[in-house]
Amino acid sequence: MFKDALRELVEKTDGGIAGIVMDSEGIALDSYARDDAPFDITTVGIEFGVILGSVKRAAESLEAGAASEVAIGTDKMITIIRTLGPTYFLALALRPDGNFGKGRYMMRTTAPKLLAELG
Amino acid sequence: MFKDALRELVEKTDGGIAGIVMDSEGIALDSYARDDAPFDITTVGIEFGVILGSVKRAAESLEAGAASEVAIGTDKMITIIRTLGPTYFLALALRPDGNFGKGRYMMRTTAPKLLAELG
Repeated sequence: MFKDALRELVEKTDGGIAGIVMDSEGIALDSYARDDAPFDITTVGIEFGVILGSVKRAAESLEAGAASEVAIGTDKMITIIRTLGPTYFLALALRPDGNFGKGRYMMRTTAPKLLAELG
Repeated sequence: MFKDALRELVEKTDGGIAGIVMDSEGIALDSYARDDAPFDITTVGIEFGVILGSVKRAAESLEAGAASEVAIGTDKMITIIRTLGPTYFLALALRPDGNFGKGRYMMRTTAPKLLAELG
């Protein structure tokens, strides 16, 4: 149901590899990956979704307000995660040399559309 | 011993609030905060240092290579964390409207200098 939005997010971000909408239990609602994606975005979403949970708790404990975004850079990829309300999140994986700024911008503009559909 | 580099990092990043060099046990080697910093950077470093540990383990389990950078955005601040070898990390806290791109750039250029001193 989010396939079109996810495809647009991935294809319009230079270096975009895959995108996913997932809930905090690690259940994927929808995902989109380029044919040559070198990994399984669901596995990435599950691992980094756990991190997002820890970040939310840490931000709460620091009284830093709600956590809205986490980005993780490794040797092989950049993953940007954005919360969609309290239960869901959107993740986008890029190549390490991908356009991180464009990816963040695309996530910011895509999130409200997804949230509206999630109701 | 890292005070000058930390001051430069914080002062040259628009919206920079505080910076810290910390080890993975949560021991601060040095820190620098603007006088009006609304929080204690050591507490932030400890909380988000734990997150960095989880990120490193997740990246390993995903075979995504070594994790080098994590950024966390909340309502009240952005925190950028960059690994300094396997044991230490550098963290920079910015206002939510701070210059995130400049902060990442400053971290990338500051990290090698700090690493050289850490020997």
